[in-house]
Amino acid sequence: MAMERTSSNISREDDQQNGNGEKRNTDAAELESVERIFESKKVPSWQNQLTLRAFVVSFILGILFTFIVMKLNLTTGIIPSLNVSAGLLGFFFVKTWTKFLDKSGLLKQPFTRQENTVIQTCVVATSGIAFSGGFGSYLFGMSEIIAKQSHEANAEQNTKNPSLVWMIAFLFVVSFLGLFSVVPLRKIMIIDFKLIYPSGTATAHLINSFHTPQGAKLAKKQVRALGKFFSFSFLWGFFQWFFTGGDGCGFSSFPTFGLKAYENKFFFDFSATYVGVGMICPYLINVSLLVGSILSWGIMWPLINEKKGDWYPADLKSSSLHGLQGYRVNFSTPRLYTAFVFIGIAMILGDGLYNFVKVLGHTLYGLYHQFKDHRFNPNTPITGNSPPDLPSLSYDDQKRARLFLKDQIPVWIAITGYLTIAIVSAATLPHIFHQLKWYYIATIYIFAPALAFCNAYGCGLTDWSLASTYGKLAIFVIGAWVGGENGGVLAGLAACGVMMNIVATASDLTQDFKTGYMTLASPRSMFVSQVVGTAMGCVISPCVFWLFYKAFDDLGIPGSEYPAPYALVYRNMAILGVEGFSALPSRCLTLCYIFFAFAIFVNGIRDSVGNNWARFIPIPMAMAIPFYIGGYFAIDMCVGSLILYIWSRVNKAKADAFGPAVASGLICGDGIWTLPSSILALAGINPPICMKFLSRSSNIKVDSFLNP
Amino acid sequence: MAMERTSSNISREDDQQNGNGEKRNTDAAELESVERIFESKKVPSWQNQLTLRAFVVSFILGILFTFIVMKLNLTTGIIPSLNVSAGLLGFFFVKTWTKFLDKSGLLKQPFTRQENTVIQTCVVATSGIAFSGGFGSYLFGMSEIIAKQSHEANAEQNTKNPSLVWMIAFLFVVSFLGLFSVVPLRKIMIIDFKLIYPSGTATAHLINSFHTPQGAKLAKKQVRALGKFFSFSFLWGFFQWFFTGGDGCGFSSFPTFGLKAYENKFFFDFSATYVGVGMICPYLINVSLLVGSILSWGIMWPLINEKKGDWYPADLKSSSLHGLQGYRVNFSTPRLYTAFVFIGIAMILGDGLYNFVKVLGHTLYGLYHQFKDHRFNPNTPITGNSPPDLPSLSYDDQKRARLFLKDQIPVWIAITGYLTIAIVSAATLPHIFHQLKWYYIATIYIFAPALAFCNAYGCGLTDWSLASTYGKLAIFVIGAWVGGENGGVLAGLAACGVMMNIVATASDLTQDFKTGYMTLASPRSMFVSQVVGTAMGCVISPCVFWLFYKAFDDLGIPGSEYPAPYALVYRNMAILGVEGFSALPSRCLTLCYIFFAFAIFVNGIRDSVGNNWARFIPIPMAMAIPFYIGGYFAIDMCVGSLILYIWSRVNKAKADAFGPAVASGLICGDGIWTLPSSILALAGINPPICMKFLSRSSNIKVDSFLNP
Repeated sequence: MAMERTSSNISREDDQQNGNGEKRNTDAAELESVERIFESKKVPSWQNQLTLRAFVVSFILGILFTFIVMKLNLTTGIIPSLNVSAGLLGFFFVKTWTKFLDKSGLLKQPFTRQENTVIQTCVVATSGIAFSGGFGSYLFGMSEIIAKQSHEANAEQNTKNPSLVWMIAFLFVVSFLGLFSVVPLRKIMIIDFKLIYPSGTATAHLINSFHTPQGAKLAKKQVRALGKFFSFSFLWGFFQWFFTGGDGCGFSSFPTFGLKAYENKFFFDFSATYVGVGMICPYLINVSLLVGSILSWGIMWPLINEKKGDWYPADLKSSSLHGLQGYRVNFSTPRLYTAFVFIGIAMILGDGLYNFVKVLGHTLYGLYHQFKDHRFNPNTPITGNSPPDLPSLSYDDQKRARLFLKDQIPVWIAITGYLTIAIVSAATLPHIFHQLKWYYIATIYIFAPALAFCNAYGCGLTDWSLASTYGKLAIFVIGAWVGGENGGVLAGLAACGVMMNIVATASDLTQDFKTGYMTLASPRSMFVSQVVGTAMGCVISPCVFWLFYKAFDDLGIPGSEYPAPYALVYRNMAILGVEGFSALPSRCLTLCYIFFAFAIFVNGIRDSVGNNWARFIPIPMAMAIPFYIGGYFAIDMCVGSLILYIWSRVNKAKADAFGPAVASGLICGDGIWTLPSSILALAGINPPICMKFLSRSSNIKVDSFLNP
Repeated sequence: MAMERTSSNISREDDQQNGNGEKRNTDAAELESVERIFESKKVPSWQNQLTLRAFVVSFILGILFTFIVMKLNLTTGIIPSLNVSAGLLGFFFVKTWTKFLDKSGLLKQPFTRQENTVIQTCVVATSGIAFSGGFGSYLFGMSEIIAKQSHEANAEQNTKNPSLVWMIAFLFVVSFLGLFSVVPLRKIMIIDFKLIYPSGTATAHLINSFHTPQGAKLAKKQVRALGKFFSFSFLWGFFQWFFTGGDGCGFSSFPTFGLKAYENKFFFDFSATYVGVGMICPYLINVSLLVGSILSWGIMWPLINEKKGDWYPADLKSSSLHGLQGYRVNFSTPRLYTAFVFIGIAMILGDGLYNFVKVLGHTLYGLYHQFKDHRFNPNTPITGNSPPDLPSLSYDDQKRARLFLKDQIPVWIAITGYLTIAIVSAATLPHIFHQLKWYYIATIYIFAPALAFCNAYGCGLTDWSLASTYGKLAIFVIGAWVGGENGGVLAGLAACGVMMNIVATASDLTQDFKTGYMTLASPRSMFVSQVVGTAMGCVISPCVFWLFYKAFDDLGIPGSEYPAPYALVYRNMAILGVEGFSALPSRCLTLCYIFFAFAIFVNGIRDSVGNNWARFIPIPMAMAIPFYIGGYFAIDMCVGSLILYIWSRVNKAKADAFGPAVASGLICGDGIWTLPSSILALAGINPPICMKFLSRSSNIKVDSFLNP
């Protein structure tokens, strides 16, 4: 599932939704004001945050990370988050350069944390394309090589071989949409909803700690705490690596609560990242995740599995889909797996749409009043919530909000940009994929902003970007609509690409906005950096893929060096998709409706009972994520919560001051380890040992097999 | 090797040997005087420490523990240390009883920590016999059932079947010797050498913490620290248990430094006990252990293994000896293994004899002067060292030493007792074992006190009681002397029993004296308790064994429920022994001489260079122990050292005040876990999961075997 982790971040609850009961972690750090420490440092204007050296470094790192992501795409298909590495390496490169210039007396502009954030954002945008471009999934799934392997729907109308030109064109017309759809959401997510985006927050802590001025005592201690846990987390990742020499090996497959619980994805996987994320997230989120995993993997799935032969045929043929390591699903068929994905999506959509409609309602209501009072100004940020009540906020939040709102990006730019690109895209895409008519594209573009909102919101809450999930939804809906005989398989895959690019960028970039918010980077410089990064990615990624495609003849062949396992998974999904909803087990749609309604209902309750009670009611969005991912990361996060809880009980002041630093250290250390581990994987160096977990009985068998 | 751990304890260096550089841990606790806290509590007279209820509880616990040890003897042969459980359960029983009496107003004598120590001592003495009685090793190895399995030397003269009468008689005539030989060593070990006996110290901390009076603030904090780490260590043991469902499974076989290092016994085995022991022991001991393991398993053994076919035949038949899980030796033959044991013994003997002679010299010199000055008084404790320089000691040590020296046991009692029992024993034993002539026994009894000293000393230094090692030495020497045709196998096994009983009791009881010293229990009450406990053990153990022997027909048959694996190991050793030293690889004796001389030489250097330098020179006794046990426990102990070192660097005062409490908690928690884990094993409940460590290549094989 790590594929889903590309941009990992979780978010603090909206104060207005959730009350002050959940105000814990970020506030703690803010008590000891970070911005007061940085007061001596001037924040450059947004134009000055965008330096040439920043983009040069971003370009170099972008190529490096694109190579890493691409190779992982084509080998295991599991892509770790590289945000933290981007921040760190950006710092390292520019710092070395500025130090060198400083010594030779040539330094004109000092290296600021805002510039660092710009680099980080740009690199994430560039390398994000390597993932959302689908070179290991939907895009490569269109090729003949993959089509031949599935023995179905491999007629010419359902295949399209890669070529440099159409891939670059395709990426250019779809990748910027997410960007424009995220711009108006910016303030709602970061300032109004106060979403946390744990990875974004952790990266911001890391960047702030790099740039902390000399002399601040507490800040120094916090930086030291961050550094200590950063090293610990990095070394822990390194240590774990040695024992993962095979599938299901190592600490990440540790059946902490027994093998039976492990099969149902209840285990503590020793991930420092998610323990840190749990320390940053409010208790309610962690509990919601746990409730969701118990509801789904603890109760529902076992019950549904018992209905085998009743609700769905027991003898469905097993395909390569379910055997893949990334899924590790013990369901018998891809159909069933898809069904479970759908139930989760229904719940996420219910929650997301509820909030989307709520925000939209507030906004329209606000606009209506503004219009009636002749105060209409299109530059006003769209949000129905009143402007943040600055005096009630901490010093840091006040200063951050002020700077975040200072450099506005007018709404009309966002809307015009979105519409222009949507029209260009709807006109261009049918020329690339004949099967994908303009009205399919228009339909996607109508719903996309809502889904982008859902993903950015969910990602802010739980640190999971579910871009590929929304992509699968698009495969299914568009595929079924087009139909198999009209090239529905290819249309579905193309639609998946359109959708994934929008929602993936939306969550990645909102997360970067969070980092920017916490480092006082201007939203304008962030936006420009994202545009530049995305543009670089649209060229770099296809070129890198092309290199692999031309260099290795056996790309995509199972058992070869580059099997690109997810390409076949996506194609199989698309083949399933063209059969329409009849492909799903009979009761699946009913369950989807129930959970969709349930999510809306719970949100309604949460809004109506008031803050005192709302903080005891789980959040459906958070409950839905474990539905098909499993409960293990929820357990990690609850462990993080538990640690923080005990710490607060023992020493509240210390926990408040150092909790976020420790959590950021844990997240960032593990995050940086992904870089060397990816490089080891690229170099073909495999871990030497497999730490395996066997039941007593199979251990006896294995022992007699190994020592006959 | 856990068989060796029966009485686990390590010891602080002699101040006179080692200087103040090593004064670390116990001193720290003493800074915060424990005895001042207990000042309000009167220490009962030694007669009042010996209550009837104490012996009743001891009797019950003695039977319980004898059952546990006996069953483990006959199943796996690996016996954990039960000292801590004895202390805890003793406290629990008597406390409940006294509370009950107190409430009904009938309580005459309150429950004191001295009484608690008396119970602990008595139970250890009782259950110790179940191990040193050899029911799973030498004694059962004499039987026909085992003899038939080795196909050699199973003539009538070399077998003796168990029978209740001779077993009880045998135990009675050999078990009390250790006791009397330990009595005069008491003061030298505990007060002069200040040996630590980590397990004994930890038990004392536990008992003290149970009886800490209300109101002492720091003491309360220490008790809480002990309790916290006690629980952690217990739960950690419990957690580990689930993953040990097979040989070489679980955390205790974790190849922390890779599989190659694991094969050479370099790994961190996550044992809370040994980490705690490492925290109590001086750095020098831990470093010596590490140096010893690198010298033996890192350098010598690999070199000797390369000499296969040169120094020793390459095609020696492999016997069941080396395959046993307890040994996990990768040497090809039992001969080679024996050789390595011998090199280790040579070094231990060198160190032990050096110190024995030194002490004896001092003593005789002191006696000579006393005699010359007409001040001779046989009641004076024998030690050449001047009486402890009380004013220079901490308050605790002063008070403890005063009480420890107050109730003397006159030397003439010890000597008379030893001689009487030796004569009775030499007269009786040949009637039980015709092959064992009286002069063999007399020889053993001449050397035994020196070896008892060695073992008690080594155990005080490193927490390892090597009783079975000295037993193996006796097998070899006496077996070779008697010769195969005169029943040397049986004589060797019987000699092993005599030797093991002496040296095992010596180390167990010195350790109990240490606990008594730290809880202000009188040496007299300890001695009486030990005599009573030993007497109980001499009756209980044979009876329990007899029960098993009569109840299960297949006792000792490989593959059955009670295979008693070590019985065959000991018999094979004895068969090897009768061949004499020619059975050892050719260069083995040379190496033994070298290491014997090396140990004496290093000790001489240590004594001559002065304290400033001596604290950088490893102690040969500590270096020798990893020679055949391996380096893993040394690594655990170094981890403990490292933790304490970092802790002292961060906060010296806290580390000094809480270090011993934390270490005791770690040791005791793990120690208590052995009780439920033994009971689980007895009940036939096996751990459900095996955490296995496979190389990449064998993992691939196993995966294809499990999922064809």
